[in-house]
Amino acid sequence: MINKNFFRKKKEFFTLAEVLKITDSKLPEGTNYDLNKQIHDVATLANATENEISFFHSAAYLEQFLNSKAGFCFVEEKAASKAPSGMMAIINVNPYFAYGKFLSEFYLDTKTHGGESDSKISPNATISKSATIGEGTTIKAGSVIGDNVKIGDNCFIGANSVIGDNVQIGNNTTINALVAISHCVIGNNVIIHNGAKIGQDGFGFAYHNGRLQKILQLGIVEIKDDAEIGADCCIDRGAINNTIIGRQVKIDNMVQIGHNVIIDEGTVIAGCAAIAGSSKIGKFVQIGGNASIAGHLEIGDGAKIAGMSGVTKNIEKMQSVGGLPAIPIRDWHRINIKLMQMIKKDK
Amino acid sequence: MINKNFFRKKKEFFTLAEVLKITDSKLPEGTNYDLNKQIHDVATLANATENEISFFHSAAYLEQFLNSKAGFCFVEEKAASKAPSGMMAIINVNPYFAYGKFLSEFYLDTKTHGGESDSKISPNATISKSATIGEGTTIKAGSVIGDNVKIGDNCFIGANSVIGDNVQIGNNTTINALVAISHCVIGNNVIIHNGAKIGQDGFGFAYHNGRLQKILQLGIVEIKDDAEIGADCCIDRGAINNTIIGRQVKIDNMVQIGHNVIIDEGTVIAGCAAIAGSSKIGKFVQIGGNASIAGHLEIGDGAKIAGMSGVTKNIEKMQSVGGLPAIPIRDWHRINIKLMQMIKKDK
Amino acid sequence: MINKNFFRKKKEFFTLAEVLKITDSKLPEGTNYDLNKQIHDVATLANATENEISFFHSAAYLEQFLNSKAGFCFVEEKAASKAPSGMMAIINVNPYFAYGKFLSEFYLDTKTHGGESDSKISPNATISKSATIGEGTTIKAGSVIGDNVKIGDNCFIGANSVIGDNVQIGNNTTINALVAISHCVIGNNVIIHNGAKIGQDGFGFAYHNGRLQKILQLGIVEIKDDAEIGADCCIDRGAINNTIIGRQVKIDNMVQIGHNVIIDEGTVIAGCAAIAGSSKIGKFVQIGGNASIAGHLEIGDGAKIAGMSGVTKNIEKMQSVGGLPAIPIRDWHRINIKLMQMIKKDK
Repeated sequence: MINKNFFRKKKEFFTLAEVLKITDSKLPEGTNYDLNKQIHDVATLANATENEISFFHSAAYLEQFLNSKAGFCFVEEKAASKAPSGMMAIINVNPYFAYGKFLSEFYLDTKTHGGESDSKISPNATISKSATIGEGTTIKAGSVIGDNVKIGDNCFIGANSVIGDNVQIGNNTTINALVAISHCVIGNNVIIHNGAKIGQDGFGFAYHNGRLQKILQLGIVEIKDDAEIGADCCIDRGAINNTIIGRQVKIDNMVQIGHNVIIDEGTVIAGCAAIAGSSKIGKFVQIGGNASIAGHLEIGDGAKIAGMSGVTKNIEKMQSVGGLPAIPIRDWHRINIKLMQMIKKDK
Repeated sequence: MINKNFFRKKKEFFTLAEVLKITDSKLPEGTNYDLNKQIHDVATLANATENEISFFHSAAYLEQFLNSKAGFCFVEEKAASKAPSGMMAIINVNPYFAYGKFLSEFYLDTKTHGGESDSKISPNATISKSATIGEGTTIKAGSVIGDNVKIGDNCFIGANSVIGDNVQIGNNTTINALVAISHCVIGNNVIIHNGAKIGQDGFGFAYHNGRLQKILQLGIVEIKDDAEIGADCCIDRGAINNTIIGRQVKIDNMVQIGHNVIIDEGTVIAGCAAIAGSSKIGKFVQIGGNASIAGHLEIGDGAKIAGMSGVTKNIEKMQSVGGLPAIPIRDWHRINIKLMQMIKKDK
Repeated sequence: MINKNFFRKKKEFFTLAEVLKITDSKLPEGTNYDLNKQIHDVATLANATENEISFFHSAAYLEQFLNSKAGFCFVEEKAASKAPSGMMAIINVNPYFAYGKFLSEFYLDTKTHGGESDSKISPNATISKSATIGEGTTIKAGSVIGDNVKIGDNCFIGANSVIGDNVQIGNNTTINALVAISHCVIGNNVIIHNGAKIGQDGFGFAYHNGRLQKILQLGIVEIKDDAEIGADCCIDRGAINNTIIGRQVKIDNMVQIGHNVIIDEGTVIAGCAAIAGSSKIGKFVQIGGNASIAGHLEIGDGAKIAGMSGVTKNIEKMQSVGGLPAIPIRDWHRINIKLMQMIKKDK
């Protein structure tokens, strides 16, 4: 059950009719479900009860689906007929998407550290007189806003975050707690989670006669609209050109992004991945957890990089790779099978 | 020598008799050591001198043990007879444990940022009026405590940490500096090191027609008694069910734990490891440094996962695995030997 | 073009004569370039125009060099004759080093969060009365300075950073925002980037009868002159002896360094690398991104460890290794070729 200490609904319940409308879903043909039935909460297939809605979107959960006590469930059309008795199947071409969309209507998106009793602009924040703050923007206690910073409307700056001089932030952007941002221009509807560090020096040194000469880093970071950046990510600013995080790029926790990296629209990067300097990542690329991409590479649109793999060469668009060094994923699987056969002979 | 600027003893010295009692140790049979001999400090085998105590618990240090000038040393019974002349062997079934136990009596556990001249509840902290703070609890400068937070007795909240609305913390729990916690219920005697980020959104998106729909994350994080969480760890809250860190789980620095992960009692996780969403880790599992565990897996009780390995399948209890992808550790060693043989033929 | 909102030149332009002098460079023999020509900015080979200077130091950029519109370019002697018409070749034995050196004269090194309108010692910092702060040192808002801390002259302590009791910091050292330091002695000219965590407990537990006994960590961290430590790095203090970061060691973001690790002079460590407890790293070692080094190992001077590799054995000086487990890099390449051949036969 959703813990109501932490999460609050926008509305006590939705009717089946409302859910169909919000999510653009339909009912199985020939059913005569009561469209006024009330949906009071969401739950997993294993835990949901009569008044709750769940979703079934992956064969891995078939067993749980078949035994679920959920009163309602988003499903693909082909699965609707398998719904256990007592469950109303709600058909959507993308049940997980439908669930997500409904959830956004059902629950408030609570800020990590609301401290609602605190005032909109906390008296315990340190804000430069030359900073410009838009209407409806919240700035929590302990945050430090530098000179000439421009923050748009309806933004949220979390507690103890530090926004460096001259940084620009669009509208409706959320920056959570303990974030440090400098040398950066950020768009609209961006979410930056706790502890991300954005805009610090890229890692550049020239070795000469036992001395490591620091190379001043003179590019910035650009973060486009609708991007989301996970907790404790580090994104270095460019050396001369800019580091760019494209529109709607979604980055999980603790991802390292080196200087001059360019990530194009819609790319999704799982936790602990690392992209070394100057690599260019295409659109809607999927990068698995703890994968590494060496520097100065190009990864084509729609490529898939398996978790934990280490990419050392360019990857063509739509290609799937895995392993260390990363090779086409089928080749990697073949090699792993071969290796196991090789040692079985000896046993 | 222990730097006395930073660390303070509780007591100037202990006698041999006291050490035997505290650590439940014994002396080699037939010895007539003076039980009033004083032990004034601890040191490594290589550096210890006449009035200092060390420990010998691993064959890797045999050479150092045989040449040690330590006046006293915790050893296993079988090693006692090899003690160099001048060293009093103190026999314990677990010398490292005995050393650790004695150390806790000998030295104060200094808080990372005591700032003892600061008052118990710093006037420079921002504390919501609706928060409840137990007796004997310290709250350092710059920390921000949200609405309805409940903190138990004798806790420590470090400088510039941020505790989100409604978070509950038990007794005797230490939260160091620059920590962010939200959507979380924490037990007793928990230690959370500098910079850990706990309770932020899990990484959930549903892709549909070029749009990545954010899935609101409605679970919390539960951290049970006696757990310890390293610096800059990230623990995401659950999507619907909770993320759970079990009793006495010990987690090193920079470990990433995805949403819905459940880690059972006594499991130890070394630095930079990553556990993807919804995986379940058993009791007293050992996870090596930089190891990755993919999502939706089950790791049995007592399993051992070698450092740097990548787990892509369920692991049976008590099994040891290594490599990428992780396989039984002996198989991995066999394959590595085979591969080296393969290229030697060609040389 | 360098974004002048964020970066400011020290001087509007330099003449060619000045550049030659600053960087100890020369012109190609027989050229009669006008030594009063003005250089107004820096840019990449691809973007530079007539009044700008670039550098060419890697064959990977040959194409860009040959087509560059840069008016000036640092090059090695052998490349000078290939300079396109319109480009003045400036010959230096190390073009990247020359570029870096010139850049330090050309642009100001802006602090991440200057907030220049804030006073030198921010009234919003919390500074213990027993702390000693040198002349010319800046302490930004929200930082917390513990008891008996000693900070030298001309240092910078960034916003919301936390300096624990008794920490000592030399002269000209920069500590950026959201850094936590405790149990640590830091030298001169050190740079510590946003969010680094230094001096927290090493990871030490002794298992006994279902109980994990915490081992108090009684060593400190020593950071020598001219070291640079990246964003969100974690460096644990020693267990008994100290963790030591040597002179001029350069560490990229998110690097984990366990207790008792010793890193000698001039070693360079790329992002997301991890060094487990008690390992000793020699001088001028190069450690690639996301590489892991197991505990209790010795890595010889000048060794090169490929990115993403996992070192499980000692490495001789000047040796290059790669792979998991790491082996001599040529052997690793040979194995990878063999494996690809093995599966090609089957296709």
